[in-house]
Amino acid sequence: MLIRAFVPAHITAFFVPVFHEDPLKAGSLGAGINLDKGTNVFVSIETGTLERHIHVAFNGEPVKKDDAIISYSVAERLVPHDFVGEVEVWQYFDFPNGHGFGNSAGGALGTALALSYSFGGTWLTAAKLAHEMEVTHKGGLGDVVGQLAGGIEVRIKAGGPGIGVTDNLFFENYKVLAIPLGPLRTKDVLDGEVIEKIKGEGKKALDALLNDPRPERMMFLARDFAEKTGLLDGELLEIARELDRVLKLPSSMIMLGKGLFALVREEEIEKVRGLISDMGINYTLADIYTERPKVGRWIG
Amino acid sequence: MLIRAFVPAHITAFFVPVFHEDPLKAGSLGAGINLDKGTNVFVSIETGTLERHIHVAFNGEPVKKDDAIISYSVAERLVPHDFVGEVEVWQYFDFPNGHGFGNSAGGALGTALALSYSFGGTWLTAAKLAHEMEVTHKGGLGDVVGQLAGGIEVRIKAGGPGIGVTDNLFFENYKVLAIPLGPLRTKDVLDGEVIEKIKGEGKKALDALLNDPRPERMMFLARDFAEKTGLLDGELLEIARELDRVLKLPSSMIMLGKGLFALVREEEIEKVRGLISDMGINYTLADIYTERPKVGRWIG
Repeated sequence: MLIRAFVPAHITAFFVPVFHEDPLKAGSLGAGINLDKGTNVFVSIETGTLERHIHVAFNGEPVKKDDAIISYSVAERLVPHDFVGEVEVWQYFDFPNGHGFGNSAGGALGTALALSYSFGGTWLTAAKLAHEMEVTHKGGLGDVVGQLAGGIEVRIKAGGPGIGVTDNLFFENYKVLAIPLGPLRTKDVLDGEVIEKIKGEGKKALDALLNDPRPERMMFLARDFAEKTGLLDGELLEIARELDRVLKLPSSMIMLGKGLFALVREEEIEKVRGLISDMGINYTLADIYTERPKVGRWIG
Repeated sequence: MLIRAFVPAHITAFFVPVFHEDPLKAGSLGAGINLDKGTNVFVSIETGTLERHIHVAFNGEPVKKDDAIISYSVAERLVPHDFVGEVEVWQYFDFPNGHGFGNSAGGALGTALALSYSFGGTWLTAAKLAHEMEVTHKGGLGDVVGQLAGGIEVRIKAGGPGIGVTDNLFFENYKVLAIPLGPLRTKDVLDGEVIEKIKGEGKKALDALLNDPRPERMMFLARDFAEKTGLLDGELLEIARELDRVLKLPSSMIMLGKGLFALVREEEIEKVRGLISDMGINYTLADIYTERPKVGRWIG
């Protein structure tokens, strides 16, 4: 049996981390965007072997337990202990790992959905487990909840699925320009001194957005947040300023990756394409994904 | 400007009403199914008149305030008081009103989404208002929340959007057979003696479903609920038994309408079509709708 799950890439615009010893009460406040590209998880289940085996692969390459601890932990919990057979979890990412696209959460949630679909469970039990493993193993705080919300989401009450509360902004005709320039270790940023600044600026941005809940406003607030926390600086800030010259709305920094994103209108695409190719950097233009993650039997 | 919103029809399988003086804390527990047919709301906004006017129409026919109190209340709250112009809310229903398809909630939520999209607001503020008006004017308790959840949903914590918690069941390849036979006044049932029975049986059904969260189990529990509460009896029960003869899963009663529904596999369709046309009754075969409600500018 082959099951496929799709979970959108999720870019965080600004955030307030909320730590709690109960992983389901930990999470984040903030805002983010889901893309129609992201993580595809294929789960193959075969019986007829002599032992219970679970394998995880990233982009076709098998990975060891230590390098995919979140997905292995999810699978360990969902594959029944008395199951005898091979469970293979193939995760394919449209964006590079560690660049702030929610790949870790996408892999966790996709794995949880596909295995729950196969072995039993519900959307909520799967989502809670993915969130719990993300938080416990420091993959992230708000991506699972953001990915479940879809569209342009605002996390207004922190916490995992069933506890946190999300809202969605109305929007019209935007594409998302995403420029991944390099990885950034979430752990380093969240353990550093910058955390208090992030909390303060994040809370301010959230309050301001809820007072004027439009995607345009979100981009201004995201940029403010990125600059005031000091996360966006140097070369990245220079590129952001270049982008601003050809775009109506400010670009901002992908939280947390060394990368930028922007909301782009159809009529701005040509100009921005030209600029980026002049700079010789990679980019992706994606649509905003407003549906739920998907899971189902794969007949491919 | 013309805005269109779509909200799926929502059939409740079983429920526990939860009353509360705060409408956002009122709601229901239970389970239900969303269909790819339902309520389409078109909102047209034109300025250039001398006064602020709001009009609501059902299936092309203008309706007075008293006959569409929920939708008028939603519109009154969302059209700014200093707006000068004509706001027309055209609601089209794929299923008849009062038959248990969540038309009232569909109209309220569709109107709230379309007007918030036009005048400002978010998904959550729109959804909360629709739920509040539904509860206040006794349109229903759980439809708005069920419609937002999509798919086959389980309401595990009662309350309006942002307070209530929903779950979703995994399912595969089912179509929904819906047979609306007549209206049933929700108010009459919910005010009657049967309410205590509904609460008891509803809670039992919910607990049993969460122990074995599969759509197949839901149908058995729904049928049990319908019979044990005494809501399903007489002619309706006879038709349900006829349907059972050709279907693998039990059919059950639409809560709350004089009507039946069933989950049907592709290979069962021919047989059930034959039976129903022999009985000379109307029916609809719909797909399960797993997306969110939709709203956007209409270019038709």
